[in-house]
Order: sequence, then C-alpha cells, then structure tokens
Amino acid sequence: MHKNHATWVQTVTLTPPSLKDNTADADRLIQALKSRLNTPVIDIDLDLLKALPAVLRHSRFKIRCILFKEGQHWVLTGITDTKDATLIAGLAVDLGTSRVVLRLLDLSTGRTLAESAFDNPQEKIGPDILTRIHFAEKADGLKELNTLIVSGLNSAIVHLCESHNLKPEQIYALSAAGNTTMTHLFMGLDPRWIIREPYIPIVNNPGVLKAAELNLQVNPQARVFAFPNIGSYFGGDLIAGILFSEIYKKSQTCILVDVGTNAEVVLGNENWLIACAGAAGPALEGGVTRMGMTAGPGVIDQVSVKPDTLEFDIHTIEDLPPKGICGSGVIDLAARLFLNGMIDIRGKLIAAVCGPKIEEIDGLLHLVVVPAEKSASGLDLTISQADLDSLMRSKAAMYTILETITGSVGIVPQDLESFYVGGTFGAFINPESAISIGMLPDLPLDRYKPLGNSSLGGATLALQSGKYHQEISHIRDRITYMELNVNQDFMNRFSAAKFLPHTNPKLFPSVETVQKKK
Amino acid sequence: MHKNHATWVQTVTLTPPSLKDNTADADRLIQALKSRLNTPVIDIDLDLLKALPAVLRHSRFKIRCILFKEGQHWVLTGITDTKDATLIAGLAVDLGTSRVVLRLLDLSTGRTLAESAFDNPQEKIGPDILTRIHFAEKADGLKELNTLIVSGLNSAIVHLCESHNLKPEQIYALSAAGNTTMTHLFMGLDPRWIIREPYIPIVNNPGVLKAAELNLQVNPQARVFAFPNIGSYFGGDLIAGILFSEIYKKSQTCILVDVGTNAEVVLGNENWLIACAGAAGPALEGGVTRMGMTAGPGVIDQVSVKPDTLEFDIHTIEDLPPKGICGSGVIDLAARLFLNGMIDIRGKLIAAVCGPKIEEIDGLLHLVVVPAEKSASGLDLTISQADLDSLMRSKAAMYTILETITGSVGIVPQDLESFYVGGTFGAFINPESAISIGMLPDLPLDRYKPLGNSSLGGATLALQSGKYHQEISHIRDRITYMELNVNQDFMNRFSAAKFLPHTNPKLFPSVETVQKKK
Repeated sequence: MHKNHATWVQTVTLTPPSLKDNTADADRLIQALKSRLNTPVIDIDLDLLKALPAVLRHSRFKIRCILFKEGQHWVLTGITDTKDATLIAGLAVDLGTSRVVLRLLDLSTGRTLAESAFDNPQEKIGPDILTRIHFAEKADGLKELNTLIVSGLNSAIVHLCESHNLKPEQIYALSAAGNTTMTHLFMGLDPRWIIREPYIPIVNNPGVLKAAELNLQVNPQARVFAFPNIGSYFGGDLIAGILFSEIYKKSQTCILVDVGTNAEVVLGNENWLIACAGAAGPALEGGVTRMGMTAGPGVIDQVSVKPDTLEFDIHTIEDLPPKGICGSGVIDLAARLFLNGMIDIRGKLIAAVCGPKIEEIDGLLHLVVVPAEKSASGLDLTISQADLDSLMRSKAAMYTILETITGSVGIVPQDLESFYVGGTFGAFINPESAISIGMLPDLPLDRYKPLGNSSLGGATLALQSGKYHQEISHIRDRITYMELNVNQDFMNRFSAAKFLPHTNPKLFPSVETVQKKK
Repeated sequence: MHKNHATWVQTVTLTPPSLKDNTADADRLIQALKSRLNTPVIDIDLDLLKALPAVLRHSRFKIRCILFKEGQHWVLTGITDTKDATLIAGLAVDLGTSRVVLRLLDLSTGRTLAESAFDNPQEKIGPDILTRIHFAEKADGLKELNTLIVSGLNSAIVHLCESHNLKPEQIYALSAAGNTTMTHLFMGLDPRWIIREPYIPIVNNPGVLKAAELNLQVNPQARVFAFPNIGSYFGGDLIAGILFSEIYKKSQTCILVDVGTNAEVVLGNENWLIACAGAAGPALEGGVTRMGMTAGPGVIDQVSVKPDTLEFDIHTIEDLPPKGICGSGVIDLAARLFLNGMIDIRGKLIAAVCGPKIEEIDGLLHLVVVPAEKSASGLDLTISQADLDSLMRSKAAMYTILETITGSVGIVPQDLESFYVGGTFGAFINPESAISIGMLPDLPLDRYKPLGNSSLGGATLALQSGKYHQEISHIRDRITYMELNVNQDFMNRFSAAKFLPHTNPKLFPSVETVQKKK
C-alpha cells in the first residue's frame, strides 16, 4: 500500500489515440494513472486541461506527470514532456508565530535541497497571537495580517529558489504546519472565535488548498496541504510534531513536549494518544525576564558556575558577546544557582551567598549575570527575583502538567520510556538542568531526545508520501484532548512543584545526589 | 439510496459549540451533513469557509445549506440562515449549436420556474461546427468563441432572472448538455483534434466545474455539471437524451434517434446500449433546400396535397405567412408528392403529373410549393430536384443506419418496441410521412414517441438529484459505440434505401396499401 516518494512524479507512456481507441486526452491519461496509482479518482483543473493536448502531442504521449493527494482523491498538478528534466520541487513550511522556516525538497526523491527562515512579519503587529487576533478584528486587520505572512512567504520563496537556480513555478506542492491561529491567518480566516469561550476555530481540517487561492506565487496548479488542528490551542504544528516523533507508532508509552508560550504535551503509543496544552509560563520562551529573548546569535544558552568562586561561565550562541538569555539559558542558570546554594528551595536569591553579584533596583533583588563591560549592550545583564519567581511558576506548571497527563492513564512521569522535546526549546535545553530544578522528571538522560524542528519535520513528511496524509488524519482522530481543569487537585500538585526540585525530593534522586556532593 | 430533490437544500440545526464540544465551525457542519447525507466527504471552498462563522452565529446555528455533488464527493456551495427564504435556483442548459435553451428550476423542489432560449451567438462565426473549429485555430479564435457563448449565457441568465424576480447569485447549480464541440467551446478547450483523425476530444468526462472559472455570472460558489461525451461525434446532449428517454431502464429493446446535421442513434434496453452517429444529410435540418430552414414561426411544418387537384395545403408554425420549410415539412412534402404520384420511386419530379407547378431554372426542375403572392417574402417558395435528391440520400442514410444498428444485434427495425425521436425534428415530424418515404421503419404509429427537447430534459434531471449523476456515468460506461464503417455491405443497403419507400416494398406494408388505394 505504501508508495515511495516517486509517487508524486510519474513517468507515463500512453498508447497514442487511434480510430480503434479514440478515448479523449484527459480520460486516456487518467486511465493510465488510475491503474498506476490504484486510485478511483484523479482530478485535473480546467487550466491544466487546456494545456493537455499540446503537451501530449509534442511529447508523443511520453509524459512526466506531477501529482498530489487531496484526501482520498489524487489531483494532477502538472504535466511535462519526459525529456523535460526540470526539477519538480516541494516546499515544507513551519508557520511559526515568531519565525517561519522553509525547506525546499525535490518532490521526485523527497530529498532536501535547501532551507531558509525569516522572522514572521506579523511580529510588527504584535509578538503574540492574542495581539494579532485583536488586530484582525479591526477594519482590514485580517487582510493585513494575511498579506504580511503571504508576502513574507512569497519573498522567501523567491530568494530560496533563486539561490538554488529554481523558479517558483517549479514548486508544485507545499505543506504548512502552524498553530491554529497562524493557520487561520495564513488562510485568511477570521481567528476571533479562537480566543472567545468556547474557543472555536473556523476549521479543524483545512485539507488541501490551491496555492493560487492563498496567493502564493508558486506553480499556478500547486496544492498546499494544511495540517489539521485539534482545537484552538492544539495546532497543526504539534500534529506535525507527533508525526515526526513517531510516538503514535511506539509500543511503549512516550511523551512529546513542545514549549512555547504554551507547553503542548502529547502522551501515547501505538494504541492511544492523549494531548493537553497549558500555560507553562512565558519565562520559558524568554518573554518575561528583562534580559530574556528567543534563542539566537549572542543569546546565552548555557551557564555554569565555578563552585569555589561562584563565577559564571556563560556560553552564547555563535560565541558572540552576550545580549540576553533564552529559556534554556534561564533553566541552566537557575539550576546552577540552586545547586550552588545561591537560591533556596523556593527559588529566592540568597544575598549572603551571592554577595556582590546582587543589586537592589527599585526594592527588587537582581543578580548580575554578565557585567556591563562584558555584555553586548554595555549594560549589566541581570535576572531579577521576579524573573526567578516567574520561572518557578513555569517549571511548576510544566511538571504539574506532566504529572497530570501521566496520572490520567495511571502512570507517573518516571515511567516514560522516551521523552521527546521539540522545537528550539528542545534543541537547546539541558535536560540535566531541567531535572535539577524539577521541571522535567528525573529520567535517565538518554531517554531525553531532542527532535529539532519537529513541526518542519512533519511538514516535510507530508510532502514525501501520500501515506502520511492518512497517518495525520489517523493521529488527529486518535488523540483524546484533555482539558487541563485547574481544580483543587491540580493546584495541590502545582504548589508541591513550586519548590526546588520538589517538595518530595524522592522524585528527583539524581538531584539529591548532586546537592549532597556539594 | 435515492434521495429526493430536497437533497440539494438541507435545513440543519447544529448543536452550538461548548467547552465540552469545541469542534470547529466547518467540521461541526460537515459532521452534521455527513450523517444526514451518508457521505464520507463534503468539501467547502475557502471563500465560503471565510463566511461560515458569521452565518453560523447570526443564525444561532440554524442554517440552510446548499449542496451539490462532484463525483462521489459532496460540496457545500452556500449557507444561509434558516429564516432566509430566498429561492435557491438551478439552471439547466441545452447548449445547442444553433439554439441555446435555458430552464430555471427551484433547486429545493426540482420544479421548473421558467424557460428561455436564444440563438447561439457563435452563429455569427459560422452556422456549423466545422467552421467554428477552424475559426478556433486562429489567434484568439477560441477565446472569441468561448466569450460569445459565455456572454450569451450571462445575458440570458440576467434576463431570465429579472423576469422572475431572482438575482443570478441565487443560481447555485447548473447543468450543461451539448455536443462535444459545443462543450469544448463552452469550457474554453481547443476543439482542433475533434475533426482530425483519429478524432480525439480533450476530455470525455468534464465532471463538475466551478461556474466562476467558466466566467458564468451566477453565485460565485455555483457548480456546473457538464455532461460527458463518448467521442467527438457523440456528445453530452445525446447522453442527456438517453437519460431523459429512460431507454437504459427498459426491459424491451428501444431506439432513440436525434437528427441534426448528424443522425445520432442509440439502441438498447436495461442490459445494453449501442450507439452510432452518421451523416443523415443536411436536408433534414433544413440546411440545403433553398427554402429550407430550422423550425420557427412562419416555417412550413406540415404539407398535404388534395388528391384531385394536387393543390398543396400547407401549415406554418404559428400560422404566419410561409417563409420557408423545415426538415419535417420537407419529409411531409416528399411523402405527399410520392403518394400522389408527383415524384417517382427514385424521387424524381414527374413533370407530366405536376403540370404548371413545375418551373425550370438554370436547367434544373423546381416545384413551386407556395406561389409568390402567398409567401412571406413575395417570392415563390420552391423545392428543386437537387433538394429532393438530397432528401433521398438523407432518408436512405437514416434508414441504412437504423438497419445497420439493429442488424448488429440480430434484429430488424420492425422489431423495435418504442421509437423515441428527440429534438425539434422529433417534435414536428409526422412519422406517417417519414414511413411513407421509407425513412423510418413501418412500425405502428403509436410506437413513435416524440421526446421534445430531450437534451434539456436530461440536463434538468441532472439538477434534480445526485442519483442521476451516477446514472449518467453508468449510461456512458455501458454504451458500445459502433463506428459506421461505410463498407460494401453498408453501401448495398444504402442503395436499396434510395428508393421510395425502398427497393423491398414488403418492408413498408402500410405504404404499399396507401399507394394501392390511390
């Protein structure tokens, strides 16, 4: 049943028409493709139909067909002479709220040709989804947001193609994985009901759209597979992540965690999948600390502390002068502060231990992580007690979500066989540090598996074989979405998790060991 | 399995969304319609998707849905508040080479609201298909032909709607039945290969198209069902006729004949269908005789001859002064001439009998049918020996085709249980006259059944229920198309049929009787 990549591009030699077989051009081609692909329906758009007879005759009925899948249907998106060796390309898109990543593929082989990324131009409207949704409610607001993302994509496509000697018209298939709001804005759909109780998207399963009706400047016949969502807060990006992680195929129960403004969590195996999403706190995304920012060049992603001098040894991305700290850096920092006794189990700075690194600004304690003379800005890079308090809430929320979702199926986080961590967060986080502060469960470190950009990974798969479209649909249908009711039980767990690493240190034996060493 | 007309328009009350059921708007609607219609797939266009949330909320989730079928799929083409009682209309179109007929329907009930017709504006390019195909090969020729028919339709739609207090936007579904070339020109498809061996259309099964991509100015979401063809010379108009005649459901073998420039013939019953088409001669369409024309006001459609005086008693359509004669009138005339001994068994005018009615012009005998003082033009309306010779060839071709197609399944024309005659020809022809000249077989007259505009009738059915789309497909797949090889056997039959009524008068016992009486 599974066809390999080459399915999208088929070389077909038709029996030329004769008085004995005067089947029409389109029907002749469709018959040949139907038996080749074992499918009952192949659609051809009117514009392509118009081009068909000339190509068939010019090529002497030896043709290369470009196809895509629309649900159970197949659709013909292009036809060339077999002698035409022009590369047929696909484009996988991770439609991130803050960053959009493109991956150009050879549709014939599924091979990656190139990647590029750009900051989501909607950032100029607002960095977060909520601001953008409110903006979309203004006159022409939705149109502007839609134009920003589509124009951004079109520019990036032109550049990506130019740098690889392709024309955008050579792109015949796209896939797009984004959260529910980004997918709506990309499609030009009003997102207003997403943020209003009971939080309803316009569409859960956008399916396959025409690139032209989305105003994407690629081949006029190109199709776009838009990943489905489960609800307003569980988008296609995570479905793509599940596809890429393969947890839906595993015999043993695994977990997939993707952390942005929300922590999105999927627990499951080949038999079942449970998902939930919760506000894990903006601290993890770098949104709250004054020096916090998303990972990028010059951003602190690793921190260690010399136990004797308590001096910080920082690492920045691309080894540039430090300009801020990202979520994984904050976690690293907090872990070191805790392990070196610079903060207490409530996450409070201990002035007596931190010594001259402490400053008090407006009555609030700040810890200088990078002094002014070593920072990119020439100003002290500090973390405040408020930042640390925010992190404590975030890490507690994360652990509580993990406890709650595993508890719902009668297991504990410590039972997990594999712990997949998606996104930038997963790429940079040091699991040991996250365990030290009790954010992630105390599993053997080899069970933690960073996935990289799992959303882009899933989007890539959707362009590699039609079988994944079915799997995506199966994944979506199989997921039980658990609403995280913030009830008394949740609050009790949350309170217990607001300590370092936890009120119950037996849950974190490895952390206990490290502390004892000190 | 069969749904009644109301299927296209469904009134649905959705369970409003809640925190316990936060299914997206589109998916909520599709779920409800899927179970209602028992179908796995319902498509919604992006533009309609954009409009969905406002309509759902404004109507408090009580909505009227307008649907259509695309193959096995259903597609949602419109949605209104249930309180909106605006009529939902459909439009069946008979895309004739010379005349286009529209029938406006209430899609909810299938009831006919109105009809109108206009001369095909492509006539200004050329009256026949061949001229138009050659014109299509010129620069912008195809575009001009396409624009002519589409603009003609759009004007007619505006007028038809205005006169019934509708707006064109209320038309959500159309069906179009035309010959293969007309269907191609309507779709903007190059017809050049239709007239070149081996005579290949671009498409046999156009399926369902968007009205907007055909530039039809109706509802932007409206769909158009285009009837399939079997080949270049067997078009969707005849498939529509078969559907309307119901011969594909009959237990006894019947025949359907539609005569235009070609005679199109389908023989069959519930088990099998055989079709063929042949040049029956333009005489039958009024194309050749100098006074010939298509049926219309002032055109002679019936002729009788007073046996004693040999005076003509003519009847014109709408009883207007005679201006020409249509195919059925010519047949009537020839039958009377023969029965009254004014032409011989070879169809030659007998000057001695016709007397003063005979004129010789340029060495060719002419018979004055209407003298100048009684004609609309003030000129003699005459029929020449050449016209009669042409009719003899046409009638012989018609009978030979009937003999050949029935012979191919081992029966003779005299075995036919029902003889359906479609089109204008069928509406006006006097079967008794056609039998008298040996054009149609000598069956009891009650076996002849005029169908009226069977093409429009079939197109109407296609808008009344989705089940007909399947039946159309079954009809098309079940037809064996027989090429009329003009071999020696065919030529022998043809020669034998070129006498009045036939070289074998035993085939026409009723005609023999009449002659004996005289």
